Amino acid sequence: MQTLLLNRDDVVENARMTDVIRAVEDAFAAYERGDAQMPAKSYIDLPKYNGDFRSMPAYLDAGDWDAAGVKWVNVHTDNVEDHDLPTVMGTIIYSDPETAFPLAVMDGTTVTRLRTGAAAAVATDHLAVEDASSLGIVGAGVQSYSQLEAIASIRPIETVVVSDLDDERVQAFVDRFGDEFDVQSGSIEDAAACDVLSTVTPVESPIVKREWLGEHTHINAMGADAEGKHEHDDQTLLDATLVIDDYAQTTHSGEINVPWSEGVLDDDDIHGALGEIVVGEKAGRTDETGITVFDSTGLAIQDIATAHVVYAAADENDNGDPFDLVDTRV
Amino acid sequence: MQTLLLNRDDVVENARMTDVIRAVEDAFAAYERGDAQMPAKSYIDLPKYNGDFRSMPAYLDAGDWDAAGVKWVNVHTDNVEDHDLPTVMGTIIYSDPETAFPLAVMDGTTVTRLRTGAAAAVATDHLAVEDASSLGIVGAGVQSYSQLEAIASIRPIETVVVSDLDDERVQAFVDRFGDEFDVQSGSIEDAAACDVLSTVTPVESPIVKREWLGEHTHINAMGADAEGKHEHDDQTLLDATLVIDDYAQTTHSGEINVPWSEGVLDDDDIHGALGEIVVGEKAGRTDETGITVFDSTGLAIQDIATAHVVYAAADENDNGDPFDLVDTRV
Repeated sequence: MQTLLLNRDDVVENARMTDVIRAVEDAFAAYERGDAQMPAKSYIDLPKYNGDFRSMPAYLDAGDWDAAGVKWVNVHTDNVEDHDLPTVMGTIIYSDPETAFPLAVMDGTTVTRLRTGAAAAVATDHLAVEDASSLGIVGAGVQSYSQLEAIASIRPIETVVVSDLDDERVQAFVDRFGDEFDVQSGSIEDAAACDVLSTVTPVESPIVKREWLGEHTHINAMGADAEGKHEHDDQTLLDATLVIDDYAQTTHSGEINVPWSEGVLDDDDIHGALGEIVVGEKAGRTDETGITVFDSTGLAIQDIATAHVVYAAADENDNGDPFDLVDTRV
Repeated sequence: MQTLLLNRDDVVENARMTDVIRAVEDAFAAYERGDAQMPAKSYIDLPKYNGDFRSMPAYLDAGDWDAAGVKWVNVHTDNVEDHDLPTVMGTIIYSDPETAFPLAVMDGTTVTRLRTGAAAAVATDHLAVEDASSLGIVGAGVQSYSQLEAIASIRPIETVVVSDLDDERVQAFVDRFGDEFDVQSGSIEDAAACDVLSTVTPVESPIVKREWLGEHTHINAMGADAEGKHEHDDQTLLDATLVIDDYAQTTHSGEINVPWSEGVLDDDDIHGALGEIVVGEKAGRTDETGITVFDSTGLAIQDIATAHVVYAAADENDNGDPFDLVDTRV
């Protein structure tokens, strides 16, 4: 038996965004129903290299399909400057749950970007106004691209306001999407007034003020992924209908972790988990809802759900490189 | 940058057993010195498929070299009968600790067999008599081959007594090694009288009696890997100089787990960890030592140390298949 090797281009080509969003939504539902297994991330800290590794295994049963695998991913802060490599790289082993045969090994870096965009889209679909046509993006790095691609596939986005201190990054973003959307370079204040706002920065002090937000702005708070990081005013989190991806992860390292540790926020301030909204246990946006926040830290089930979509399409399209990787002699 | 793909043949060709044994010994020493990180295995249990997945990440710094990676491995009990696939399959992602780039993806099934043999050899080197010339093997499955290959590389083995209920497996073993060694099919009693005894069976009731052992037999107890499994009489464990690979794993699922849970064995019965002996904190065999037992459950550091040897040799020999797996654009 052969394992399918899927590089960046294979992943991009076989990850139809609407399918990825649906699979990620199914994954949140499975997690909520108790039909997923997601052991806590295991960390290996390497202070001598200013980096760490994370092992993220998961299984989920979506009813029509199930999937298993592990993502091995890192954060090495000096990579760009010292090694001309990305800060974050990932590799995914995607396995058949029934036999454990490794069906595919794929570029987890690209899967991570896609699944992060897809999670924002699932949240936006349940929490943003139906006719949302403007999207603000703060931080024009690699994650910003999949934010737009994913969110535009579930809302009629026309105008995009992109804000970043680095003009080259803004220009690259405009060059990439200028033909499809009305893309404007703007301030954070401009971005915050949009119907939907995705923040994708690694800042440790809030940069988006409460008063800049529109009346019904839905925020995807994607940037915070470690203790001490947050992008939004405490008041925004207190005023918003606050939705999280995972209680343990968000209170420890998500957008809410700083005010949480300071006692500014507690359980009563959390409307619910995204999975609860997906399965209908908690309400999404109603006519009475004002601003909403989705605090996303990223779950292994998102990676494996995305890997499922990619593998299924690649297998059907005869994409990728089949390779005799593991010894299957009995 | 390219990731090296290493299949079974590549792993076998580049895993010189003496190098693997030395690397695994270095790994036990690093673990003992506190120069290794090995988060607890994460389990995903899939009762509907009668199987499970385990994620085994590790980092170790041996001084001259360091290494990081993860093994994704399973136990699917029905695989052989239902799917003509092995019960256990593994895939390893081997990464550069400094940048986290995935240097190689390799057949973890083969690495598992090699590193398990190597651990037995390290233990045998410290615990068996110097002139050990006879090796008994109980259980002639896939693991038995690497037991002989590894142990014969550190002791002058001439005679091998192999015992298994399945005559075909015994014959296959004799066919494989009959030219190199005096290989005899024998009873468990015959095997137990040898200078070194490796037991590699999944039994849940002891099959090796205390009174069958030679005066100075060193036992590698490799078979038990789950609660309820053990191969040796309680009296053997009580009488022996008892050495373990890891306290948490052996007391939970190693050879000692059953008598441990029954209160028959406790801390006072454990001579030490293999790492303590390797670094010289505890004694190996002395003139006064009688029977010895190494309780091996298998550690992620063994896998990553073995992967280090395989990758280094494959890279030097231009073996394996380089592949553009992960997106490294900054």
